[in-house]
Amino acid sequence: MHAITIPEPGGPEALVWDEVPDPVPGEGEVLVEVAASAVNRADLLQRQGFYDPPPGASRYPGLECSGRIAAVGPGVGGWSVGDEVCALLSGGGYAERVAVPAGQLLPLPEGVGLVEAAALPEVTCTVWSNVFMVAHLRPGETLLVHGGSSGIGTMAIQLAKAVGAKVAVTAGSKEKLERCAELGADILINYREQDFVAEIKEATGGAGADVILDNMGAKYLDRNVRALAVNGRLAIIGMQGGVKGELNIGALLAKRAAISATSLRARPLSEKAAIVAAVREHVWPLLTGGHVRPVVDRELPMPQASEAHRLLEESGHVGKVLLVTS
Amino acid sequence: MHAITIPEPGGPEALVWDEVPDPVPGEGEVLVEVAASAVNRADLLQRQGFYDPPPGASRYPGLECSGRIAAVGPGVGGWSVGDEVCALLSGGGYAERVAVPAGQLLPLPEGVGLVEAAALPEVTCTVWSNVFMVAHLRPGETLLVHGGSSGIGTMAIQLAKAVGAKVAVTAGSKEKLERCAELGADILINYREQDFVAEIKEATGGAGADVILDNMGAKYLDRNVRALAVNGRLAIIGMQGGVKGELNIGALLAKRAAISATSLRARPLSEKAAIVAAVREHVWPLLTGGHVRPVVDRELPMPQASEAHRLLEESGHVGKVLLVTS
Repeated sequence: MHAITIPEPGGPEALVWDEVPDPVPGEGEVLVEVAASAVNRADLLQRQGFYDPPPGASRYPGLECSGRIAAVGPGVGGWSVGDEVCALLSGGGYAERVAVPAGQLLPLPEGVGLVEAAALPEVTCTVWSNVFMVAHLRPGETLLVHGGSSGIGTMAIQLAKAVGAKVAVTAGSKEKLERCAELGADILINYREQDFVAEIKEATGGAGADVILDNMGAKYLDRNVRALAVNGRLAIIGMQGGVKGELNIGALLAKRAAISATSLRARPLSEKAAIVAAVREHVWPLLTGGHVRPVVDRELPMPQASEAHRLLEESGHVGKVLLVTS
Repeated sequence: MHAITIPEPGGPEALVWDEVPDPVPGEGEVLVEVAASAVNRADLLQRQGFYDPPPGASRYPGLECSGRIAAVGPGVGGWSVGDEVCALLSGGGYAERVAVPAGQLLPLPEGVGLVEAAALPEVTCTVWSNVFMVAHLRPGETLLVHGGSSGIGTMAIQLAKAVGAKVAVTAGSKEKLERCAELGADILINYREQDFVAEIKEATGGAGADVILDNMGAKYLDRNVRALAVNGRLAIIGMQGGVKGELNIGALLAKRAAISATSLRARPLSEKAAIVAAVREHVWPLLTGGHVRPVVDRELPMPQASEAHRLLEESGHVGKVLLVTS
């Protein structure tokens, strides 16, 4: 088969579409004939040599895919050859075929196309596990989403609105904020022109955000703590603004607030399967009902993965950038 | 009545036993004839002028007491004059009488004396709300308690052991660590001579602590994050080591760990009542059965509150220092 390989870490041109051996599904795994994969920030780090795949994972990039089951390994029940699926991966999505633990498979939601389903696994699992399973966002509460027009952001807006929360977003342009508003965002903050702490306070009558979904890490740490409401929860899922930052514990304690930081990729199979099962139970019905939609910026042929990485680095996109196999 | 007043903030001598007006129980409150109160670190800060009582609270220090109900205000059910109780307070325990919201009352546990019951409300509510309600310590997990011989520490050790957890403690002397061991602590760390990160890792086969109960704040922040296990939870309840510290978000994220910071005093009545109800449900049966005991360092007459504050500042005590009215 073909896959995107990284012979030497580097810029987008480091991604090479090459002939590689086919993966073989092991115990508890299925082989998926990939229709599409999607680009995640973590793929950019892996390409640069900063984020090695966990032990046992495919060496090729790609943390999610959609496609058809081509073979079923030993010990797998409930899935058959030919089933249309999407899947959370620990690597290997940028390829024509990938072996996947059965616990990370999701059926194609009714009304979602086979290619666009590749936009779903990472964002639904990340948002559901952080905003709902860890931070317990409740109806009537306010969620602040940094990077509201990103793949994660566009799904966070929709899921939070679907459960009856109020949603604030930050983004870097009027156009991106308009897209967020179309998805349901109530409070629009242009981080280039406005102070998000002041804006969220003003929009909530001085209270602040009950939950913040953050991809900036150190750069926003102090401001995020200031933007939290009493009993607020800050969920950090990325460190695009640095790894180490000063924490005002006194401010955190005065608000009885909490900070969590997670990633999906390094989790053991059992935790990934538990998240996927929760997503299937809670998010899939919203997709089937059309209340929540995958947001796709564009589709590129998989051999043009370099171009897709450039698009993400330029941050001009809204939603997910997909890589299609044929 | 008499109460400890603070005419001018300052050292222990700032505490003055003086004649003051009797409190009057309002709607939903009872009047308690105080048998004993207990000294908390927050009282020392209040004496120094660094921790003003929240709006509506008594201006006198004292965050807990035991005694008999002397009067019942309007709208209170389930409590009668003469009932022996202990209570979580937002202030006013260093006095002969105090008005208490009924939701913060607890009955005297069978087998616990009226005076020693004053040692219970703050430590049981703090430990239960943080270690169990927020950090969800589970049987088989490891809890690290900083200041294991403090009032909070001695209760945390006992409650964690009662639910089947493994307990590590830090303390500053061999004698204090021996007292912790008598209460059930499994792993004893002298913080003056040993590196608690290295010790907890070694004692857990490299895994680290699942939950850490911390009173040091900034000074221990980085080391606490390093001492956490994967999926670990750091619960900060004090800032004796400073308010602002550098947080390694990368380390937190790699462990999928969480940090919470809380205090009891500033919470609204409804949250305090929910914690007190949970303590009555889960901790009171352990006290009645003799599985958990209040640990009292010594009892002093309440007019000698200055001496009690000196004792806490010298940190020679193990467990609680009580102030007895007569």
